[in-house]
Amino acid sequence: MTDPDCIFCKIINGEIPSKKVYEDESCYAFMDIAPFEKGHTLVVSKEHIEFLTDLRAETLTQLILTTQKVAAYILKALPCDGFNILQNNGECATQTVPHVHFHIIPRWNNNTEVHWHSSKAYDSDEEMQEIHKRIIFNGQ
Amino acid sequence: MTDPDCIFCKIINGEIPSKKVYEDESCYAFMDIAPFEKGHTLVVSKEHIEFLTDLRAETLTQLILTTQKVAAYILKALPCDGFNILQNNGECATQTVPHVHFHIIPRWNNNTEVHWHSSKAYDSDEEMQEIHKRIIFNGQ
Repeated sequence: MTDPDCIFCKIINGEIPSKKVYEDESCYAFMDIAPFEKGHTLVVSKEHIEFLTDLRAETLTQLILTTQKVAAYILKALPCDGFNILQNNGECATQTVPHVHFHIIPRWNNNTEVHWHSSKAYDSDEEMQEIHKRIIFNGQ
Repeated sequence: MTDPDCIFCKIINGEIPSKKVYEDESCYAFMDIAPFEKGHTLVVSKEHIEFLTDLRAETLTQLILTTQKVAAYILKALPCDGFNILQNNGECATQTVPHVHFHIIPRWNNNTEVHWHSSKAYDSDEEMQEIHKRIIFNGQ
């Protein structure tokens, strides 16, 4: 259930490097390279399926429970005050990689401008690296 | 696990009318009154919890599986070409009702303008009623 031409399958198997946040047997989480906000993280199913509606119940259950765990960690570790979960199905819905993934988009009470598209989220590469270290989650 | 002052708890128990799309023992789905697009539907947990990160694993599992079922039905019945799943946690994340809910936002290939906020989605009340009839889902 992988596609050799899929960028997310290549990230999961290590062919393409990523800023990994978490991994378990069914899911892989990493920082989005086109972030809406600092700490924007994707949680990807290891199965290559395009639409959420085509996932088996067991796979979807694992994906949402992992998304919940990673989001709870980001809330505390980043920290942030709230977050959006976004999951796009189809190019018309702004899905850019046809492989099911949940976005976790951190939000803050003092940030009145809510981006729904990529923005210059990090002030520098150093800041991105520092935030990555903060949100790496070992599953505990 | 209900809050007598919560608008979604009142919708679930019938105190406030809604355009119901689907109901099962743990979830209630209805058309959003501030839709981004035609057919925009909310899937609400019957438990009154504010953040997704505070849901019990069992409740979250039921909520995402119901959301998947309703989304699959809307895809065919509306029909639409794709959809977004959106779930907001906290006022800073544009959560307007502090009771966990997933948005299902239909999208179309020929619609280049993707709204992330309420829009005048329906041309008339009649169109809204007609779309409601189309997406009422009996769970089969």
